[in-house]
Order: sequence, then C-alpha cells, then structure tokens
Amino acid sequence: MPLFNQISIIGVGLIGGSLAKSIKRKKLCNKIVGFFRNKTKLNKAVKDRIVDEASLDLRKSIKNSDLIILALPISQIINFLSQIKKISKDKKVIIMDAGSTKLKITQAADKLKLDFVGTHPLAGSEKKGAGFSYANLFDNSKVIITPTNKTKKGSLNKIKLFWKKLNADVIVLSAAEHDKILSYTSHLAHIASFCLIDTVPDKFLNFGASGLKDTTRIALSDAEIWSDIFLSNKKEVLKSLSAFEQKIKRIKKTITKNQKKQLIKILDTAKNKRRIMGQ
Amino acid sequence: MPLFNQISIIGVGLIGGSLAKSIKRKKLCNKIVGFFRNKTKLNKAVKDRIVDEASLDLRKSIKNSDLIILALPISQIINFLSQIKKISKDKKVIIMDAGSTKLKITQAADKLKLDFVGTHPLAGSEKKGAGFSYANLFDNSKVIITPTNKTKKGSLNKIKLFWKKLNADVIVLSAAEHDKILSYTSHLAHIASFCLIDTVPDKFLNFGASGLKDTTRIALSDAEIWSDIFLSNKKEVLKSLSAFEQKIKRIKKTITKNQKKQLIKILDTAKNKRRIMGQ
Repeated sequence: MPLFNQISIIGVGLIGGSLAKSIKRKKLCNKIVGFFRNKTKLNKAVKDRIVDEASLDLRKSIKNSDLIILALPISQIINFLSQIKKISKDKKVIIMDAGSTKLKITQAADKLKLDFVGTHPLAGSEKKGAGFSYANLFDNSKVIITPTNKTKKGSLNKIKLFWKKLNADVIVLSAAEHDKILSYTSHLAHIASFCLIDTVPDKFLNFGASGLKDTTRIALSDAEIWSDIFLSNKKEVLKSLSAFEQKIKRIKKTITKNQKKQLIKILDTAKNKRRIMGQ
Repeated sequence: MPLFNQISIIGVGLIGGSLAKSIKRKKLCNKIVGFFRNKTKLNKAVKDRIVDEASLDLRKSIKNSDLIILALPISQIINFLSQIKKISKDKKVIIMDAGSTKLKITQAADKLKLDFVGTHPLAGSEKKGAGFSYANLFDNSKVIITPTNKTKKGSLNKIKLFWKKLNADVIVLSAAEHDKILSYTSHLAHIASFCLIDTVPDKFLNFGASGLKDTTRIALSDAEIWSDIFLSNKKEVLKSLSAFEQKIKRIKKTITKNQKKQLIKILDTAKNKRRIMGQ
C-alpha cells in the first residue's frame, strides 16, 4: 500500500514538478492532482503526465487528498494556507510545504490550526518551471523538516518517511534554527551574487570568465521567489549581511594598508573553510 | 619555420604548464626550457615531457631563448624582470608575462628598458600546479595584450600572432584599462567569494548546497597569487569594492523597509545583466 492515497501539488514548477516525478517513481501514492492558475501549463503538465489530474479550481484540486504539498513562493504559501483552511473539510489531510524559509510559514500554519509540517529540500537550482523538473532531484539532498510544538507526531513521522523514501537525507530543526542557518548558507550568497553582477559595468560584462560566471550563476534565480525569501527572513538576512560587510571591510583595510601577510592569512583561512565543502 | 626558436618558461604551473603543452601542440618553437626552483617539480616536468629541458639556474634557463615567458605571481614577475635584465646579454629576446594585473608589471618593464609585452590570458581556474595544465586551456579564451608606448611594434605583432596561433581571442588594451576592467570582472568576485565563505559559521558549512558551492568555488584559489593581484591593483580594487558595498547597502535598505517592489526590481535588473553572460 502506498504511503498516501492521493497527493495534491499546489504549484507545479521546478520543485513541485520534481516532487510529482519522484513520487511517481517511488509509487508513494495512487494519484497526483495538480493545481494550476494557468491553463497552458495545466495542459502541458497533464500531457507530459507529470500529474494524473489537474484543475484550475483549488477546491477540486485538494478534494479527497490525504497530503497537500505547497511548492510556491513564500508569500503565496501563506496565502494558500488560509484558502485551504477555508475550503478544506477533511480534517485528516496533512499539509506540507517546500518553502525556503520556515518561521513565517510555520507560524501562519499554527495560527490556522492546520495539520502542517514545514519542510525545505536543499535542492533545486536557479532554473524555474516544471520543464526543468526531474525525478531524482532530491536523491542524497538534505531536507530540513521543522516541526512546531503543534505538529502532530504521526504527521511528522509520515512526512519524514515521505522524504526518506525519496532518498533524501532528513534533518529535523526548529524553524528558527533553519532560518538562521540558511541566511548564511543560502540567502547571503544569493544577495552577494545579485549585488556582484549588478556592480559590474555593462560594457565590461564580456570580459567575465568562468570565475565570475560561477560566482554569479545564482543571480539567474527568480526575483520574486527570492525577494519573498529575503523579506520573510529579514532579521537573520540582515544579520548575515552585516557579518559579510565586516569581512569586506577587513579585507579593504589590509589592501589599503598593504598588509600582505594579514591578507594571505585571511584568504588562506577562507580557502581552508571552502575546502571542507568539497568541489 | 616555427614562430620562435627557443622559448623559456619561468614558472611551470597551471598557466606555464598549459602554455608549454599548447606551444608544443602548435609547434610554435623548436625547444622549450623551463626554469624551476624545486628539483622534484623539475624532474617531474622533464619526465612528463612538459618541457624539453629544465634548469634550477635562471641564467641557463634563458640562454639562447628568443622568448621568455613569466608565468608567476605578480610580485615574482617584477623580481624576475630585474634579474633577467641583469643576466640577459641577448638584446633580441622578447619577454612576455601572463600576470593577472598589468600596470605595475608594464611600468617595471619599461623602467628596465626591456623588450617586453604584457599579456593576460583570461583562462585558468582555482587549481594550481602543472598537474592541472592542459594543451587547450587557451582555446577560445580572451587574451588581453597591454603594450606601452615603449613596446616595439615587431614584438607586439609577434606576441599577438603567438596567442592567435594558440586559438585565443586577442584584445589590445592599455594596462590601466585592463586593470580597471578586471577589478570588476575578476578581482571583486574573488574578494566577495573569499568573504562569503569566511562569513559562514563553521558549524553551518554542511548545510551549503550547490548555490553556495558555485558562489565560493573561486575561494579555493591560491592565497599568495591573489593577495599579489589585489595589492598590485589596489586603487581599482578598492573602487570596485566600494561600488559593491553600495549595492549591498541598497539591498539592505529595501529589506529593512520591506520594499518588495523595489527589491524585485533590483534583483531583476541583476538577473538580466547576468543573462547576457550566458550559462
């Protein structure tokens, strides 16, 4: 028997589409229903068999499902939680999200008294849309699950099992811990990357080689998704940005004062840290 | 007839080794002589046939050569220019470098009245050493050549031809223009990358996914090489860093004030700029 009978995916983009494909591969449910706001995308997803059924009507999309997955930008996840609360009569449905910040979302879900489990798969890319989705996106990727003290133990265990069956490496953290960590390991890098490319004068762009390309690849990420992420994690993002500014200032000082030894030491420390992450 | 009779390569690392291999592939000279300061590396390079001959003695390494290539960190290039001036009796030898900043080097060469052509291949990686060298590193890569008003026209043309024969895309700029452009397209990205990884607390490193890895890959670069680059281009590097700091401040302001529309606009502008560079 599969883990769920019917799973609804709200937002069938890179993450939602990859979830649909990997759920099918692992046979974690009998039927996947997708919710779309765009008829063309709906038709394409049905034609490509990413989902078994699809609707432009949220009520129809979630009816009879025992798991609803919200794979949307943060602010939309929060909106959809309220809408689902209003229309859902099935008390047994578990709601899960895949958003990149967790505190605002879990707080909203708790307030609505939903049976909710917050999750964040550390997978994906700067690409957007179901066209880039693939079935093994989550293989060996970390997935952070952020229960609150209102999360039902049975639901938490089921969602943990769900991600484990998708070959993910499950880590349980509080939403606050998640948001603090990700502000350093993800949000800061995105802001630095956007600012970096924005600093390069247009006429110099064609002199950029592989180093600049790598360093700014994530500036190809979606502006709306990422503005939601930054704003929903404001406090932690601002803290990590200030820490980054201090590091920049320190390097500026050594360059200004021609302190070669200190500069080499700073760069070497950074390099050794980066080595820990591997290639 | 090959372009040169004998080429000396001073510093047989990633760039010097790749030059040796690509010179051989294109048969641009009859003999390559390498200068080494390390017996083990010398033996390995001879055994691997990266160079035809090798010496630990600079005088022997450059004797009878009609081209000397300096593929070393900036400060060492400047030191070697003086040493070469002292021992070289052959007035016909052209000296070329492959350093990542150009103004300090060309000024030093002009002062010594050498027949010098400054060049900078925009190729390479964070990797170091002849072990990573390969014969087609310069294929389709840009090479910036920075003549001064003391550069002999014949030497400039010969060096242009040299790089063209290695399949590089040759661009002639003044050393000052080069250093200004590269401060934005390369030096700034390296500093941002070193600072970024340095900002991430150690205990959070294992939460870093592909985005952080890409953004900080160039922080694996050699600390000594890059401290030389930053210090030898101090004025321009500090300018580009200040411009970057302004961009960070602007994003911080929009986040602090919850200005979502302005934030999206900033991110979208950056994204569109990055798109120009391709994947």
